[in-house]
This record gives sequence, structure tokens and C-alpha cells, in this order.
Amino acid sequence: MFQSFEVTARPEQGPPRLKALRQELIGEGLDGFLIPRADAHQGEYVAPHDDRLAWLSGFTGSAGFCCALRDVAGVFIDGRYRTQVKAQVAADFTPVPWPEVSLAEWLKEQLPQGGKVGFDPWLHTPGQIALTTDALAGTGIVLQTCDNLVDRIWTDQPAPPMLPAKPHPIEFAGESHASKRERLAKDLAEAGQLAAVITLPDSHNWLLNIRGADIPRNPVAHGFAVLHSDATVDLYMAAEKLGGIMDYLGSDVRCHAPDAFLPALQRLDGPVRLDKQTVPLIVADALGERLQWGDDPCAMPKACKNEAEISGSAAAHLRDGAALCELLAWLDAQAPDTVTETEVVSQLEAARRRDNALQDISFETIAGTGPNGAIMHYRVTEETDSLLEEGQLIVLDSGGQYLDGTTDITRTVAIGTPPAEARAAFTRVLSGMIAMSRLRWPEGLAGSHIEAVGRMPLWLAGQDFDHGLGHGVGAYLSVHEGPQRLSRISQVPLQPGMILSNEPGYYREGAFGIRIENLLVVRKAPALPGGDDHRKMLCWETLSFAPIDKRLIDPELLDQDARDWLNSYHAEVAEKIGPRLSSATKLWLDAATAPI
Amino acid sequence: MFQSFEVTARPEQGPPRLKALRQELIGEGLDGFLIPRADAHQGEYVAPHDDRLAWLSGFTGSAGFCCALRDVAGVFIDGRYRTQVKAQVAADFTPVPWPEVSLAEWLKEQLPQGGKVGFDPWLHTPGQIALTTDALAGTGIVLQTCDNLVDRIWTDQPAPPMLPAKPHPIEFAGESHASKRERLAKDLAEAGQLAAVITLPDSHNWLLNIRGADIPRNPVAHGFAVLHSDATVDLYMAAEKLGGIMDYLGSDVRCHAPDAFLPALQRLDGPVRLDKQTVPLIVADALGERLQWGDDPCAMPKACKNEAEISGSAAAHLRDGAALCELLAWLDAQAPDTVTETEVVSQLEAARRRDNALQDISFETIAGTGPNGAIMHYRVTEETDSLLEEGQLIVLDSGGQYLDGTTDITRTVAIGTPPAEARAAFTRVLSGMIAMSRLRWPEGLAGSHIEAVGRMPLWLAGQDFDHGLGHGVGAYLSVHEGPQRLSRISQVPLQPGMILSNEPGYYREGAFGIRIENLLVVRKAPALPGGDDHRKMLCWETLSFAPIDKRLIDPELLDQDARDWLNSYHAEVAEKIGPRLSSATKLWLDAATAPI
Repeated sequence: MFQSFEVTARPEQGPPRLKALRQELIGEGLDGFLIPRADAHQGEYVAPHDDRLAWLSGFTGSAGFCCALRDVAGVFIDGRYRTQVKAQVAADFTPVPWPEVSLAEWLKEQLPQGGKVGFDPWLHTPGQIALTTDALAGTGIVLQTCDNLVDRIWTDQPAPPMLPAKPHPIEFAGESHASKRERLAKDLAEAGQLAAVITLPDSHNWLLNIRGADIPRNPVAHGFAVLHSDATVDLYMAAEKLGGIMDYLGSDVRCHAPDAFLPALQRLDGPVRLDKQTVPLIVADALGERLQWGDDPCAMPKACKNEAEISGSAAAHLRDGAALCELLAWLDAQAPDTVTETEVVSQLEAARRRDNALQDISFETIAGTGPNGAIMHYRVTEETDSLLEEGQLIVLDSGGQYLDGTTDITRTVAIGTPPAEARAAFTRVLSGMIAMSRLRWPEGLAGSHIEAVGRMPLWLAGQDFDHGLGHGVGAYLSVHEGPQRLSRISQVPLQPGMILSNEPGYYREGAFGIRIENLLVVRKAPALPGGDDHRKMLCWETLSFAPIDKRLIDPELLDQDARDWLNSYHAEVAEKIGPRLSSATKLWLDAATAPI
Repeated sequence: MFQSFEVTARPEQGPPRLKALRQELIGEGLDGFLIPRADAHQGEYVAPHDDRLAWLSGFTGSAGFCCALRDVAGVFIDGRYRTQVKAQVAADFTPVPWPEVSLAEWLKEQLPQGGKVGFDPWLHTPGQIALTTDALAGTGIVLQTCDNLVDRIWTDQPAPPMLPAKPHPIEFAGESHASKRERLAKDLAEAGQLAAVITLPDSHNWLLNIRGADIPRNPVAHGFAVLHSDATVDLYMAAEKLGGIMDYLGSDVRCHAPDAFLPALQRLDGPVRLDKQTVPLIVADALGERLQWGDDPCAMPKACKNEAEISGSAAAHLRDGAALCELLAWLDAQAPDTVTETEVVSQLEAARRRDNALQDISFETIAGTGPNGAIMHYRVTEETDSLLEEGQLIVLDSGGQYLDGTTDITRTVAIGTPPAEARAAFTRVLSGMIAMSRLRWPEGLAGSHIEAVGRMPLWLAGQDFDHGLGHGVGAYLSVHEGPQRLSRISQVPLQPGMILSNEPGYYREGAFGIRIENLLVVRKAPALPGGDDHRKMLCWETLSFAPIDKRLIDPELLDQDARDWLNSYHAEVAEKIGPRLSSATKLWLDAATAPI
């Protein structure tokens, strides 16, 4: 079992650790220390070695940070975690609503006489530090680099991960690493840059067609890479991980110990491209005048999947959809008030594990019934595990990491007879999800320009939800991948090959949650008779196939175009997934996908 | 008659003027000179005195500029004017597609050895000059300020306008200028700024509750103003305009001759706020180190109309709608192939003039039949005037300036029996226009976030249009007013009281054009039963009332919600406009607004 229901951090662990940290502050002559959630690679998941925020404070959310001063410790958390943080941290920690209150604003209030706040320059980007430093100008409060004080007091800190990296086969990658290196090196040369430093594991794992097992849920090998404009790469990665890939990488990829990374940067000829949003400050400082800010050169090519990646993802989604259907059929056969959330998670993981290609789940399955469904990032534990009761809705958001693709799918299922207001809200969420799936739009638009399409039915009823409509997804990489997003803040034009989720939802606090999610890939839209000849347009191709619970649909609220789309989608589910199912589940699927 | 059908600029006038300008270039030791469309106030309309671009090149569009070098003269025009420019300028001028080709890129190509290009620092903003200067770094090409060389050779240049300014009555303004000055001064003081320089006539006319007649279509008095943080104002305006307003303005508004403006800036204590996008470079230079960039302090308060302005606008729209209905009824009574575009424009202006409150039309009426309708900014002249032929559509886009409000409305009308493809496209345009009119959305969103709603029906058919969905509109001020816009580039959150147009269209080159436009005002949305209690949402209230041509609607393509909206809108048109009409027109209106 990949997922555990253990409670990993307890409030009472925090205070003694905070006390020890404050001893270190005094010893260093500091007034505070920053403890981010991130590791040196700024990913969403971190290895246990890097889970300093949870270890110190007890807070286990995927975003946020702590600022520990001598007499107060703020835990900065966004809207998703306001409830969770209260349950996870002791009274010695003060939750701070962020980004409404910025670090600089909070520091100004806490340190009116000024002061020195230390931070580990491996764990913060120049963008983050500059934002706060600029806002602190003239206050007498300064941020300064120092040793990681948490690592000093964390006596039983787990070792950094050291699992071997593996080649990612060309039939899934679709392009050799030599070809990728040449393509990206050409861009660097055109920009007049001699090299780019790549610190995101997603990026250099994609570039070199390798994968690893350094962190849960995200199949990457940690390390740093420098891509040169002659298409060679210097890879800085622990020797323990390199055994299986050195021959495969060949002589144009030179492998070095991680210790050699910073000294090598000091010798590197410039200009060198760095990504301000993701590079550690210490790396930027090592390059000094030779650095030029620019995008991670892998970000956009990685986001635009090639045909091998898209067909791999499609194949993974069919196997994954079959596993989900087995679970959904099983769930429908259980009476209300007889199974719990953890049983649903375990059954679902067991169904996915029947596929030998499954490497991991792609994130902790969210299985929230009734009021738990209204907690957007609910992760069930032994303590919160709840019975699926008559009249509830369960939100089931899960995915798998397969060698040929990464999946992420959400279905909301009725337990017994759902209340009318939940059906009405579900139908609106579905209308938005279908409107986005059916959309065609002109080339050049970003997520911010079209996200409203997936929200409009809720808006017209005075409702909305407080998360983005969708995120980018990798190809056997991170389930949350940038730069593409369906969000009001995304200005990155959508391009063919990008994979995104389409996941509108609705949450009634204390009552129920709803979310429906498919993954979609951006395609060039075929010309339509009567359409504008000169206009280049894009559209979606759906990757996820599993039935949408018809018991939760109020057909009166669904227009004819949406009904047609749903019936045609369900016919495709039956055709594509049916042959992969046990005969009992196939019967269930036929009913679940019959037209409305 | 406000509108003239005269051809005001002819291609053959350009070459001798260009030759004379080049003599001046040589005399000044310059390699080129920039001739913008704008005057010192960066408005959309300019006085004949300032119409240098049209005088020199023949191009009369509302945006663009010329860069005259010693052997080539580029006329930079955007997508709306690609066809028009070819007909208006002589072969000595080279149209340049802009912004696809920037001024800097073009100069690099034309002046590979470097060179000096002069410009008048009253007519360009620091933002414009910095953009080009930055892009020219290292090329040896420099921009430098100089006298206006066009004014030197333009021997019969019309005098600057000198018509008297008038007070704008409090019943229309809704807030005294003292109250506005105090409100804005408080913002300045809070920002730590001692003053703001206001160079947009819209802005200081709004601030001081005055109006003028210095330029056609836009009822403003030209001048410059400095708002101080003590709520007093220095107004720099020609004495000829001040007679009727000096007593009204009172002692807290000190009036000075325009010549005193620059010397006064040199003495002004800082920090002083300037708007980088609209201030002339010479003004920024006069302030030097004392300037702080910021928004024009009037821009946002002016955009958010108060209840007096909104109810004034609503009243103006009812009178304006009645005038338009008289025209539409008259037009329907004419047989195909019997009237021309100029007759339609003249009849419409005559109908508007029957209202004594009409001060001007708010822009040159666009009346384009058949293929002319596909030219988005078509202005009919004696030379292009066309018969309204059987089977054509005529696009009629017009508005009035009334003391209580500014109107802008577009209707597309069938002449005889329209072709099926035009009806289908019209119905899609209407669907988008209705979807936007019906929208509710959460507070905080900008035009870029919701514009797609008005385009979606066209997108789904592989169609689109190449202009924004809507623009801001002033309160007896400019018919195009910022910062609010329904456009993919607008990041300004929509706020209660903002008036915007909602005007989707469709244009089939060489065949037909379609546009449907109402003005809408942003309102706080009332709570809905079952809606989210905590969520603040906005909605639209429609200001424009005139029937939408049902002969152009294919009811099969309109969903039930849209039909309901149309029938309810038409019932409101009949109720509000009917009592204002002649009895014959009232009969026509009853038929035109009967339910579908």
C-alpha cells in the first residue's frame, strides 16, 4: 500500500522543537529563522529528509512556511489550509492568513525595532527573497543567509533519498535526450547564452529521459544540471543514483558529485540563464554578474507533449479508468453506512495495483464523504475516517503514476439518495465541466481567458468555488506541472500537446463537496464548414474515461448540447473501458453509461 | 448636421508636404521625425489644429503614427486600418503592420548605420519613448526631442480651439468638485504625494465638473491641472475658455495661462504623481527627481459612476433609444435599393436632434451596408456611399452626447431577405451578447476574465471577431473611456458603477458585417436563494433600449434562456420606449418587440 492513514505529525511535538530552535537563534545572534515547505528543488512533494516544516510545526499541507522569532512563530497558510492548520499545530504557533498578510507586513508588526531573520539560501528563490527584502526597505529588518538551523537540532533527520535512477524508455519519451539537448541548446545559443542552470528535477529528468524515486508520488531523481549551448550537460547527482543511467546518458552528459555543483558554477562562463522563480538563491549568488534571468528552458517543451507522450498518457488513462470503474462498481454494491473512507482508498489502490505498470499513486487519494468532501485537500487519517452515510456524496480524487503516463481523475458519487440541492449543484458543476470540454478557442489565449467557461453555470446561481479550474499534468512526472494552468492568474498561452485538468467543484462547508475532473490535452481544432478559414483555433481531446454519476444529475438543468456531450462521452467510456472490465463490472458500466 | 461626408484628406496632398518636411530634417541634422496621431492630451479625438498625421499622410484613422525618414516614410497602422490606409496614402508612404512590427524593429532595418530621429516631447509619453529607446539600445539609433517640424511647414494650420468652458450641473455630476477634490487629495496625502499632474482633459473636466467644446464628439475643455494634497487645484487653461467657469470654480481652483504650466512644474514641491501612460514626456522631464509614477488619480473614481450619473445615463438612453426607433421604423418602410448609407446617417442624426439635450453625436456614425459592414471602422463618405440592397445587412453604430449622458448603440438590420449564413452568424453574435448581459460574476475579476463569455457561441462554430468585446464609456465625456474594458488585455477589476459596451460582432470580408451593442452598468448582484452567502458578486444592468432585428434570428440556434432574455428585453423596450414614440412608430415597435 502506497498510501498510509497514519497521523504523521502531532501538535505536541512542536513546542520542544521550537524551543530548541530558539536556542540556536540566540546562539547565532538572530531574531528569527524561516522554515519553508520547499526543498532545494521547489517541488510540491518533498522527501522526509526535507520535511522540516511538518517536523517543526506539525503542519503537513503542501504549501506554506513558518517564521520562528524569539517569542512568536507564525505559520503562513493559504485559504485551503485555514481549518487544517488549527488541528495540526500547538498554541505556540500562530496561524497567519497568507497571502493576505505578507511575510514583510507580519515582520514589521512583530519586530518594530528591526532585527535579523536568517534563512537557508538553498531553500529560497531570489524572487521570494527580493519580494520581502524590497518590502522591508527602511524598516531595519534584514533577511540574511545562514546554516539550516532546523537541520542542526533535528537529531533523527532521515537521510536524503538515494534510490537509483533509471532510463525512461524512448517509446514513452518520444524523443531522445540527444535531440532534446540539441533543440534546447539551439534556443540558448540564439539567446546568446552559454548555459542554463536547471534545478527542477522534473526539468532535467525530462531533458535526459531519466526517472527516479527520490520522493513519494513524483518519479524523479534529485540533482542539478547545467545545459550548455553545445548541447552537452553536466549532471550533479549522487553516485548511488547513477549506476543504471551513466552508460545510457553517454559521453555528452558528464556526471559529477553534488558537492561539485557550486564550485563548477563559480568557473562557468556566462551569460548563464537562471529561472528567478525556481532557482535557489545560493545558485544565483554563485553566478553573480554572469546570470541572466529567463525561463527554465525545459518548462515549455516539457509542457507541450509529443505524440508518443500523448498516446502513452491515453493508454495509461484507459487502464486507470478500468481500475476506477472496478472501484465504483464495488462501491455501488455496498449499502450505505457500511464502508468507510479508508476502505474506499484501499480498495481503489488495490484496483490500480492490478496493473503491473503502476509505479505509485500520483498523490494521496482524497476520499471525503459528507462534510469531509467540502475540505478541498482532505486526506483521510485513522482519526478522521468516516462512514459513508445514506444521503451523502463522496468526493474521490485520485491518480496513478504509470511508465506511460500520469493520471488524475475525480468523481463524486451518491451514497443512497442525494438531497435535491446537492443534485442541482452537481448538475451546474457538470455543465461547466462539459462547457470547457466542448470549447474551441483561438490560438494565443491563456488559461485566464477561458477559465470562466467552466464556472459560469455556478456563477449564474450565485455560487462558485475557491480553487483553479485546472492544472498542468506531466508525462510520468509531476501531477501538478507548470507553466500551463486553467486559472485566472495564468498568462501562458495554451499550446497543442499541453495536458491540463478540467475540475470544477462546489463545496458547502459542513455539508457536502462536489468535484468532477477529467484530464484533457490541447489539440489543433479541425476546420469547421462555415468557419473562418484564416483563424487558427484549438480544442480539447479528453484523456480520462469513467462514468459520471447520473443519480446526481438533474436533467432539467442540463441543456441539450450538454446532454448530447454526456451521452456521447458515456458511449465512449463504455466502448473503451468496457472490454477491460470483469463481467460483473461490465454490466454495471452498461447501466452507468446508458443515455439520459 | 454634425457629421460630414466630405473626404477630408486626399493621397495627392501628402508627397509635397513630405518633401517640405524632409527639408526641415536636413536643416535640423535629423534622419527622421515622428508624427503621432495624438495631441498633448493623448485622447482619441483631436482638434483640426492637432490633426498632423492626417494632414501629412492622408491617413485619418483614430490610431497610428508616421515615422518620416529622409528616403522612406512608414505609416504604422493596426489591423483595423490595413485596408483603409491603402486608399488614403500616396505611394511615398509605406504602410507598416503595427504592433506586429514595432517602431524600433523598423528603424533598425531602415537605419542600419544608426541615426537621429526627432520627436515633439509634448506629443509622446515617457512610456512610449522608453519602450522604443530600450529596444534601440546598442544600435546607434537615438530618439531626440526637437521642435514640431510639421507645425513649421503647415502654413495654414488651424488655430487651437478656444470655445468657452461651462459648468457641468450638479444634478448630472452627482458630486461637487469640492467633494471630488477632497476625496482625491486624501488619496494623494495617504500615498505621501504632495500633488498630481493631470493632463487628460477627461480627468480634470470630471474633477472640476466642467465641460467644453475644444474637440469634436468629446465635450471637454483642453488644459492641464495640478491637484494638490490640500485639495486645491491649479488649472492651466486659455483665458478665452475661462469666462463662464471662474466664479463657479471658486478660490480653491486657481486659474493660470497655459504658458505658466511648465515653469510652475519646475517650482512644484515633490513627490508629484504622474501617469506614465498619458503624461507628455516634457512634463515628466520638468519634474525630474520629484516625480513618482502612479495612476491618474481621476481615472478610477471617474470610471465608477455615482447614482446621479447612472440615472442621467439611463434617462439619456431612453431619449436616444426613441430616436433610434424612429430611424429603424423609417428604414423598415423603405424598399430595398432605394436609400443610401448617407441618407440613413442623416435621418438618424435628425431624429437625435429632435432632443434639445443633444450636444453632439458621440462619434461619427458607422452605417455600412453589405461589404461595407465588414469594415469595422467604416465612415461613409461621398465617394463610398452605397445603396442598401436587397439581401444585405446594414451595421448601424452610433451615439449621442447629452448633458445627462453619453450613448453608444449598434443594431444590425436586414434589408429584404437576409441569407441563411448571415442569420446563423447573427444568432451566434446575439447568443454571446445575451450570455454577457445575463452574467453574474465574483468581485475582483477583470474584463480579460469574462470576455470569452461573449465570444463562445462564435468560437464553437469556428468563428470570431478581431476587436474587443467592449469599452468603457464616460458620463457626458468620452465614448471610449478607460481603464475598464471587456478585452483580453484588461487586468482592471470591474467595479460597481462602471459603464461598458457589450458589442460582439462578426465580419465576413467582402460580404457582410454584424454587430450588436448595448451599454451596461456594473451593479452589485442581489443575493440568490441557494447561492453562497459569503460570496460578493456583480452583475449588469442594461442601459440601451432598442429592438434587435428578429428577421436576423434563427430561433433554432438560440437556447431557451437566451430566448427568455430576448423576450423580456423586448418587453422592456416596448414599455420604456413605446410611450416616447410617434403613433406610427409605436405600432412598428409593438411588432418589432413581439415575443419569439
